[in-house]
Amino acid sequence: MKAEIVSIGTELLLGGVLNTNARYLARKLAELGVDAERQTTVGDNPGRVAEVFAEAFRRADVVITTGGLGDTNDDITRASAEDFMGGGAGRTILPNRRGYAEGFILESGGKAIIALPGPPNECEPMFANGAAPWIRARVSGTIRSRTIRLCGIGESSAARAIADILDSQSNPTVAPYAGRAEMYFRVSAKAGSAAEADALTAPVADEIYRRLGEYVYAEGEDATLAGTVTAELLRRSLTIALAESCTGGLLSSAITDIPGASGTLLECAVTYSNDAKIRRLGVPAETLARFGAVSAETASAMAEGAAKRSGADIGVSVTGIAGPGGGSPEKPVGLVWFGIRYNGVTRTEGRLFGGTGGREAVRARAVSTALDIIRRSIKEI
Amino acid sequence: MKAEIVSIGTELLLGGVLNTNARYLARKLAELGVDAERQTTVGDNPGRVAEVFAEAFRRADVVITTGGLGDTNDDITRASAEDFMGGGAGRTILPNRRGYAEGFILESGGKAIIALPGPPNECEPMFANGAAPWIRARVSGTIRSRTIRLCGIGESSAARAIADILDSQSNPTVAPYAGRAEMYFRVSAKAGSAAEADALTAPVADEIYRRLGEYVYAEGEDATLAGTVTAELLRRSLTIALAESCTGGLLSSAITDIPGASGTLLECAVTYSNDAKIRRLGVPAETLARFGAVSAETASAMAEGAAKRSGADIGVSVTGIAGPGGGSPEKPVGLVWFGIRYNGVTRTEGRLFGGTGGREAVRARAVSTALDIIRRSIKEI
Repeated sequence: MKAEIVSIGTELLLGGVLNTNARYLARKLAELGVDAERQTTVGDNPGRVAEVFAEAFRRADVVITTGGLGDTNDDITRASAEDFMGGGAGRTILPNRRGYAEGFILESGGKAIIALPGPPNECEPMFANGAAPWIRARVSGTIRSRTIRLCGIGESSAARAIADILDSQSNPTVAPYAGRAEMYFRVSAKAGSAAEADALTAPVADEIYRRLGEYVYAEGEDATLAGTVTAELLRRSLTIALAESCTGGLLSSAITDIPGASGTLLECAVTYSNDAKIRRLGVPAETLARFGAVSAETASAMAEGAAKRSGADIGVSVTGIAGPGGGSPEKPVGLVWFGIRYNGVTRTEGRLFGGTGGREAVRARAVSTALDIIRRSIKEI
Repeated sequence: MKAEIVSIGTELLLGGVLNTNARYLARKLAELGVDAERQTTVGDNPGRVAEVFAEAFRRADVVITTGGLGDTNDDITRASAEDFMGGGAGRTILPNRRGYAEGFILESGGKAIIALPGPPNECEPMFANGAAPWIRARVSGTIRSRTIRLCGIGESSAARAIADILDSQSNPTVAPYAGRAEMYFRVSAKAGSAAEADALTAPVADEIYRRLGEYVYAEGEDATLAGTVTAELLRRSLTIALAESCTGGLLSSAITDIPGASGTLLECAVTYSNDAKIRRLGVPAETLARFGAVSAETASAMAEGAAKRSGADIGVSVTGIAGPGGGSPEKPVGLVWFGIRYNGVTRTEGRLFGGTGGREAVRARAVSTALDIIRRSIKEI
């Protein structure tokens, strides 16, 4: 099966919204083993949508559209799809549990238009529940993927470690994907059955674990580092308290983004000022004066204060220079110190987050690193 | 000038990365007054890129590409562009200050390919510094836009309030854009000079202010609610302390995302547990027992505790039920109480954030609402 993704919406052409649907659908089609070699975005204009349909069906069997459903845009996708497919097309309605606009599949002469709504929270479940089963029933063979997620290692180092596997791949294929501070490999195999496909991915995945296992924090399409760490803390009934400076609440918000986080996170103190570090966490004024707020010593005292004052099993601290100001030759922008106290022992780690991306990137990488430090540390408890 | 955006990258077709470049370029082209009626994404494949160039130039004068530059993908964009434009094309190099791959503009016979790198932090400055001036010099007339940003009102209510303006628009045009908890109107006029265009937008913008001024927090393409509130706190030398429950550090991280926030934010206590609310903020155990953690009374005590214990001019609290669990008939998921203490007075506001989007949406809307409460309150100080 060859598919194309067509995003319909003038707002997309004006840059008013980010097209997350195209990425979602691209990923899901890849997982289903469907080739999707083109994505097109076009406005709410019947003539132009018709043009795109005509072009897309010269290359593909299935066109998946998002947007242009419902009253606000005169139901342009429905009208264009019906015009294009003609009166004899078979129709399957895709119910919308999250909104008002129904989706549909229109089939005729071996071609199909799958129309999904524009809002991602309506589009994604409609694809997963309505369109994906329809596609799966029409794709020959089975694709099975394993998504192996790593943190604490850069994409290029990780790719270098398995360069021979990346070079020699065919079935399974192995592809590296990089996020800001995490990365993953997707190992995908195609075979006649799920069991056969799994048997093809297993030895390659095993070899990735053999070489890079210490960096692997989870497997799965939807796994996140914060979710993995929080689940592990909950599973082991460990409580945690945080003390954040440069990340300013971002670490806490990553953990509290996980439902049930209240079972492990007792509290977080965002202590931006020296005074707050002293008063809230008991960091000695002398430590701040002698070593500075961004130092192993202060990180250590912050982690200790967080654990002791809350009674949590684990205390974690982050203190650094996110920039753009505040750097010095000795303590440049991007320098971040981490502290973790558990089992009565406090350890510290310092990192320098260089490269591009500015304040936001330093903060994001500091959060991932703190989560990774928690992940590695609780292995030892 | 008619332009099209062509994103080149197999990773985009596999859903490995989100195409933020297309949105950025779409927005910038709209601001420059350039029509861009089609966006296409295609893989790192010379034949398919050539096909896309041929199709795009049947409709447009200028094709702007992202990705496919540099060694990792065999410089496919450069090779395809040179093939397409032929040997006689004029070339302008676009330097890359953030990475290794140079961009370029290739011109021939009234058509041009502008090639930009894939990483957004390289693509965006290269467009702004290299491509935008080239385009501006070739566009007839001037487009001037005003972006009027609102919070505390939904998109549909705001659009209803100016329905007659939205309906009758031509020059200037007025378009509403909705975010998760904020929205904006963009008022754009085209004229022979900037002054003439500004004269066209002014009366329409004035009328929007007349009807919806109380909800307007800022104007500008890059303005954010957190940035506006933080700048105003800094300008007025007001210090603030936060007490977060359901938002779990998200409010604090929104403020600390702004460089210089340390000048106003003294500290934030993320107090998830009742015990932390009592110990860190001095919320009376009796208040928690009698009214519950999600109540006006607890929000009030949290805001008071935040202000008093830190010595900040303003104390702000957020306590609510983000879900998916924890709701009851009396206190459903989405109920959030806010407290603000300033000038010795504590006020509270309760909101019920319904609709779709789940935990993440409740938390995001709670953050925007808290920022809006701070914004409105400091007007009165």
